[in-house]
Amino acid sequence: MNKIIALLTDFGLNNHFVGTMKGVILTVDPEINIYDITHQIQPQNILEAAYSLADTIPYWPENTLFAVVVDPGVGTSRRSLIVRAGTGHGIICPDNGILTLVEQEFGLLDVYEICVKNRLPGTNAYHTFHGRDIYAYNAARIVSGKVISSEIGHPIKNPIERLKIHEAKITHENIHGNIVKIEKPYGNLCTNIPMHLFSILKISYGDYLEYIIFEDGKERLKGKLPFVRTFGEVVHNEALLYIDSSGRLGFAINRGDFSDNFQIYAGTTWEVRLKKQAVKKN
Amino acid sequence: MNKIIALLTDFGLNNHFVGTMKGVILTVDPEINIYDITHQIQPQNILEAAYSLADTIPYWPENTLFAVVVDPGVGTSRRSLIVRAGTGHGIICPDNGILTLVEQEFGLLDVYEICVKNRLPGTNAYHTFHGRDIYAYNAARIVSGKVISSEIGHPIKNPIERLKIHEAKITHENIHGNIVKIEKPYGNLCTNIPMHLFSILKISYGDYLEYIIFEDGKERLKGKLPFVRTFGEVVHNEALLYIDSSGRLGFAINRGDFSDNFQIYAGTTWEVRLKKQAVKKN
Amino acid sequence: MNKIIALLTDFGLNNHFVGTMKGVILTVDPEINIYDITHQIQPQNILEAAYSLADTIPYWPENTLFAVVVDPGVGTSRRSLIVRAGTGHGIICPDNGILTLVEQEFGLLDVYEICVKNRLPGTNAYHTFHGRDIYAYNAARIVSGKVISSEIGHPIKNPIERLKIHEAKITHENIHGNIVKIEKPYGNLCTNIPMHLFSILKISYGDYLEYIIFEDGKERLKGKLPFVRTFGEVVHNEALLYIDSSGRLGFAINRGDFSDNFQIYAGTTWEVRLKKQAVKKN
Repeated sequence: MNKIIALLTDFGLNNHFVGTMKGVILTVDPEINIYDITHQIQPQNILEAAYSLADTIPYWPENTLFAVVVDPGVGTSRRSLIVRAGTGHGIICPDNGILTLVEQEFGLLDVYEICVKNRLPGTNAYHTFHGRDIYAYNAARIVSGKVISSEIGHPIKNPIERLKIHEAKITHENIHGNIVKIEKPYGNLCTNIPMHLFSILKISYGDYLEYIIFEDGKERLKGKLPFVRTFGEVVHNEALLYIDSSGRLGFAINRGDFSDNFQIYAGTTWEVRLKKQAVKKN
Repeated sequence: MNKIIALLTDFGLNNHFVGTMKGVILTVDPEINIYDITHQIQPQNILEAAYSLADTIPYWPENTLFAVVVDPGVGTSRRSLIVRAGTGHGIICPDNGILTLVEQEFGLLDVYEICVKNRLPGTNAYHTFHGRDIYAYNAARIVSGKVISSEIGHPIKNPIERLKIHEAKITHENIHGNIVKIEKPYGNLCTNIPMHLFSILKISYGDYLEYIIFEDGKERLKGKLPFVRTFGEVVHNEALLYIDSSGRLGFAINRGDFSDNFQIYAGTTWEVRLKKQAVKKN
Repeated sequence: MNKIIALLTDFGLNNHFVGTMKGVILTVDPEINIYDITHQIQPQNILEAAYSLADTIPYWPENTLFAVVVDPGVGTSRRSLIVRAGTGHGIICPDNGILTLVEQEFGLLDVYEICVKNRLPGTNAYHTFHGRDIYAYNAARIVSGKVISSEIGHPIKNPIERLKIHEAKITHENIHGNIVKIEKPYGNLCTNIPMHLFSILKISYGDYLEYIIFEDGKERLKGKLPFVRTFGEVVHNEALLYIDSSGRLGFAINRGDFSDNFQIYAGTTWEVRLKKQAVKKN
């Protein structure tokens, strides 16, 4: 059986950190195949990482182990986890909310807390690079078959950390949601509004929607946009609404950057409200 | 026989898109070896992608299949192609001009249009990520040997799209060309002027050339520069002309950034004219 | 035995250069496994590359060959080297100081100068891409077993180039060192002060240190900071001192960017002086 580790971090690519994690993995077992999801999560943005992980997992072979390291609490008492998602995939990561979306969408099967003594030999003096010393090292040992989860950890006693994400919902024909990510490098806005809410309100391609974007409850942008299948259905530099490749509502500008253009960003403080434009009667 | 897919996109590395494409490929066939050419083509810059593809192809094993996705028309009626270049390499890509340089330099052998029904199962609702749903998926099926081109497409009926690139030429001892790319991260200018035009005009290393750079026909920069083998033949921060690693004329500053320094960029609107400096007689 | 080449360059990822190097390697031997350390060394910053190489090497399998190309002198008469570090790892690189730290920390065993005729066939006209034409090509031939070092080079006659890096030291209870790298993307400062100097001065976690940062001998920043194990031991946006993952002193801001915030950068002109704060008596 072929061995796969996929890495997702905020370490960036402009330093040796990701390379060093790969060296550690190969030193444990040179037969492991290592892939990158991304290493350019905005530094310490757990929400962005949580969505990125949930959005990519279903497209990977089931035997993939994801090593996910966005870890502002590195070296503190936050726990390290090794889990199995409802999809069958493994994930090793800090316990800081990074599993929120995976748990919501696919559920979690086994959840183990890794005992702190399981770390790369010779690294006890280091407290700031668990990506190398804990996650890469143990990921490689698991995938190589040298150990199993219950040998490096124990079933968790307290629930895992969860980010407080309001679920998208419909009230009085209005759809409410959050802007959860900016889709770089294009600048599209990714919301947490799933496409089935559009079906409930009988919104079809070609309809126009009125929207308001709020930051911290304060109106930042409002207007009316067409709901279309893809960018090229409007002319250059026109804005549009569409269902993104994860099945959620997105805001975009055809061949432009919605986020930069309107200075709209993402996070739990950014909310959006939409409704289908009433058909005017003459 | 070892299986190779090489990816070239404008998806960036600061999101999960490229990772997800790799997951799709491995799900089809975990034995495929996946490599990255670049994912940082300037968003939607087909000209830059066309040159990057043509410049890298000759250095790859002949059994490599290139999946090239710079695709502003994603989800519209633009065609998807699977072709074989004159070099023997395969390419799968949207039909938007991205093959222009490969066709000019190496020719195209088989050209098939991919039937739209050949897409990753379960993705019919998505219209904005053909990199995942069409190109990665079909590339993997081809390279794995599960299908051949004629099973997922049919020979094209109409010619492929071509970018309008003026060929570099000589008139009255002047060389005319375009600036086709900025060589990031250094900021060198890449032109479409092949080195054999320099031979025709008997220009040798050590000669000085007078140049004018135009944007939209308007003069933006002019001067005189030495034609040298490599950057280190002039002092720090001095500008120079050289033959780049693709065999075309380049403008550079030794340990500096020509593009940033002089605010000169690339595209079909950026033209350059050069001639050998007349030897002054006393 | 499994074949590994690890690449470390300043070529960036926004062009086809690194991809093309991989194509060259695979054309020599498709069984070679290729990994990236980083390709985003600041352009032509040999000091940053020297530290990055020394810091990652110990974490890789001993049979890894590192191809390190930060090469402002490409195409000039600077030598090309193939060496074996004291750790057993191979390195192929230009002779421009890039081995300084590896030599200091691990020593060098064999050091060969590569004969210039050993280059990718068909590339004699090119003088600016030895990453492809010399380093990738010969790295692949070595790792594949097609040649050995003494067949492509000869033992060097003159010493290798060395960067002038002042060693960190203690004078009158003050520690003196340099800022050698900015740890991107977080903006932490990496110094060349090894942790054992802290032991000599009996500095313990929880102590406060007074520091001054100089640029070109001129005071740029001074203050007092706690010495802690990891970022999360101070509150958000507070600065701290810590031992980084390479065992040297670092300056950081918890969830912030020290370099950007205080406009402090790295290089041989950036020095730092620290001493343990005197305990005040009441």
